[in-house]
Amino acid sequence: MERMNRYKTLLNKINQYNSGEIGITRVAYTNEEQACLHALMRMCKDAKMEVRLDSAGNLIARKEGRNPDLPPVVMGSHIDSVYQGGKYDGTVGVTAALEIINRFNEKGIETEHPIEVISFACEESSRFGVSTVGSKAMAGRINKEKFRQLQDKDGITMEEAFALCALDFNSIDTAFRENEQFKAFFEMHIEQGPVLENEKKKIGIVTGIAAPARFIVKIYGIASHSGTTPMEMRKDAFLGAAEIALELEKAAIAEQDYGTVATVGVVNVQPGAMNIVPGEVELKIDIRSSSIGSRKRVLNRLTEIISSVEQQRQLAIHTKEISMEEPVLLSEELIMELKQICEQKQLPYKLMQSGAGHDAMNMTVFGSVGLIFIPSKDGLSHHPNEHTDLADILTGIDLLEAAVLQSAIVCQSSFN
Amino acid sequence: MERMNRYKTLLNKINQYNSGEIGITRVAYTNEEQACLHALMRMCKDAKMEVRLDSAGNLIARKEGRNPDLPPVVMGSHIDSVYQGGKYDGTVGVTAALEIINRFNEKGIETEHPIEVISFACEESSRFGVSTVGSKAMAGRINKEKFRQLQDKDGITMEEAFALCALDFNSIDTAFRENEQFKAFFEMHIEQGPVLENEKKKIGIVTGIAAPARFIVKIYGIASHSGTTPMEMRKDAFLGAAEIALELEKAAIAEQDYGTVATVGVVNVQPGAMNIVPGEVELKIDIRSSSIGSRKRVLNRLTEIISSVEQQRQLAIHTKEISMEEPVLLSEELIMELKQICEQKQLPYKLMQSGAGHDAMNMTVFGSVGLIFIPSKDGLSHHPNEHTDLADILTGIDLLEAAVLQSAIVCQSSFN
Repeated sequence: MERMNRYKTLLNKINQYNSGEIGITRVAYTNEEQACLHALMRMCKDAKMEVRLDSAGNLIARKEGRNPDLPPVVMGSHIDSVYQGGKYDGTVGVTAALEIINRFNEKGIETEHPIEVISFACEESSRFGVSTVGSKAMAGRINKEKFRQLQDKDGITMEEAFALCALDFNSIDTAFRENEQFKAFFEMHIEQGPVLENEKKKIGIVTGIAAPARFIVKIYGIASHSGTTPMEMRKDAFLGAAEIALELEKAAIAEQDYGTVATVGVVNVQPGAMNIVPGEVELKIDIRSSSIGSRKRVLNRLTEIISSVEQQRQLAIHTKEISMEEPVLLSEELIMELKQICEQKQLPYKLMQSGAGHDAMNMTVFGSVGLIFIPSKDGLSHHPNEHTDLADILTGIDLLEAAVLQSAIVCQSSFN
Repeated sequence: MERMNRYKTLLNKINQYNSGEIGITRVAYTNEEQACLHALMRMCKDAKMEVRLDSAGNLIARKEGRNPDLPPVVMGSHIDSVYQGGKYDGTVGVTAALEIINRFNEKGIETEHPIEVISFACEESSRFGVSTVGSKAMAGRINKEKFRQLQDKDGITMEEAFALCALDFNSIDTAFRENEQFKAFFEMHIEQGPVLENEKKKIGIVTGIAAPARFIVKIYGIASHSGTTPMEMRKDAFLGAAEIALELEKAAIAEQDYGTVATVGVVNVQPGAMNIVPGEVELKIDIRSSSIGSRKRVLNRLTEIISSVEQQRQLAIHTKEISMEEPVLLSEELIMELKQICEQKQLPYKLMQSGAGHDAMNMTVFGSVGLIFIPSKDGLSHHPNEHTDLADILTGIDLLEAAVLQSAIVCQSSFN
């Protein structure tokens, strides 16, 4: 009960940093987020950790190991939010990590390996249209000149936003932890989907992170009078779009064993008048899978569908690829460890893929990565109603604690 | 050749009244349209007609008959245009009527029945969102208090627009030609569709005018993360919309013998983000037929489709009827007469329905109505590229002339 209250207080402390009235708005490189980060730094210092802020704005707190030369075991997530987001996305991962350090301090546990807690900067793409900026910088994956000029909705560039946080964008490269290795990296995150809740599982052990393949599809027909153009003479761009969307759905359902998903999220129909047959439609399509093979089959089917609709409806269809990221497979060794701990603790778990991207993706350059999901009520995230029960968060923390202890190797003397 | 030049000059005179740079913009109750109307009044006076402007802004020109007490034979259409419209929509009908009077004067033809040429005010809905204002007023079909307050895009009300043309909106009722009868009313209009061109016919004899049934359909699903929501757990409002649109297309194609058409012209997908499964879609649907029975079958099918999609995809769908006008059947007697004249003159014609509304619809209160279509190049109308060959217009005029002569009864002495 004491632990639960301690954790609850910690989570509330973080969530008091909020610039909005609806839900949580703690957007990357803003005053609220920076103030939150400084509060977190003080809490990490109180937990007897050495704390530094790198040149990308990542907070890195280190609890030294018995053997400081060993590679660290790292836990991390993020505290930035989307506009009008929730209290749990990212935040639970960072606070869980700090709670685990508090538990170690409480129990006097020391480990052979150093332990790090990282709060990654700018995980959310809401402000600048790019995600996981801090973890990308740490992994040496930044396109510096492109990122420098990205603008938020008020026209503030990323470089200017850095300067307002007293960060020098020019030195962002120095955040790259070149040649370093981690013993293991763990992230705990809310699922942001409905699967765990639906299947009444408390833990998701993530086997792969599905990176999106994204396309803009433009469909050109002929706009004509809705009253005077007989059905057989129409070249209705929207009906072509409707067929593509429904066939794409079928293609993804056929691959559901691989967790593959396909979505038409953006549909713009022109000219958009009640008495005019649509002449032009723009679709934005997002296809994800942690299986490259499965995603490839859906992509091939999309190409077939488009070609068939183009011919049968005499439309012109142009497809532009705007993203084709590679899925990330997570460490089989850590998956096995997490499974074993769940079984020992009798936690109902599920092996699953992550449909959303996470900082953990970028940490694979440093070694083995484990990603743990906890349930999201109604599958909601990026929403003021985002919710995860406190008991479920503590279940996740118990698992994460055990996994970190196993990787970091508890010194025998700790228990003296 | 002389006639062709005379007609061409007349058409060009009307089309020099244009406030836009692209196509023709001669919008109802604007300076350009009023100046055009006054030019037309002078031309009618030159053609020895008595001319008056009624309280709705309709121009009524009358060539007296041998027997002034007989009901008039009336020809009419409109000279107002949409924004950036073409040179032919409406204008050919008015100019054709005047050309026919010129021919009668040239040949010294007199008729038993009086002949009227009407240029109806505000046929296009582009300015105030309501169409055939002038012919509605003449037929006593105005909702005066509703129309008074309608605003154009600059916030000018119809009442104010009337005042700027020195018309008193309060007396619009006096435009109603209550208790009057016409011997016949004829309108010649461009098809505004591709059928005549496609079938290489020069004349369309319209059997019925298809009034639209219109609906707003709102589809509610659940917006969720495109990466983390498995296909089988989605409630994708857009996929529901796509099914409705495709099934509606099938329903209309099944009724194509009746010329029935169905269109989803407006599609708004919310929230409209690449990484969010659509949670809400608004569709605007327009269904037309000149056969009430056929339209009814499509409407029933739409109800079935919506109910089936609602159940199978677990969506909530609300349908709101926004218009359910009755189709207008035109005079069988005049259709027969027009057919006979086409056969005598060996003009390739087609019996067809009108998918668009016309002033002719409102004239049915005064007696028999005949509506003649001439080809539209590429089916285009309400567009700067709207085009009808001069030769095709003259063919239409020949037919209209013959039909009017037959209805108005030529005085034997005319040929003395």
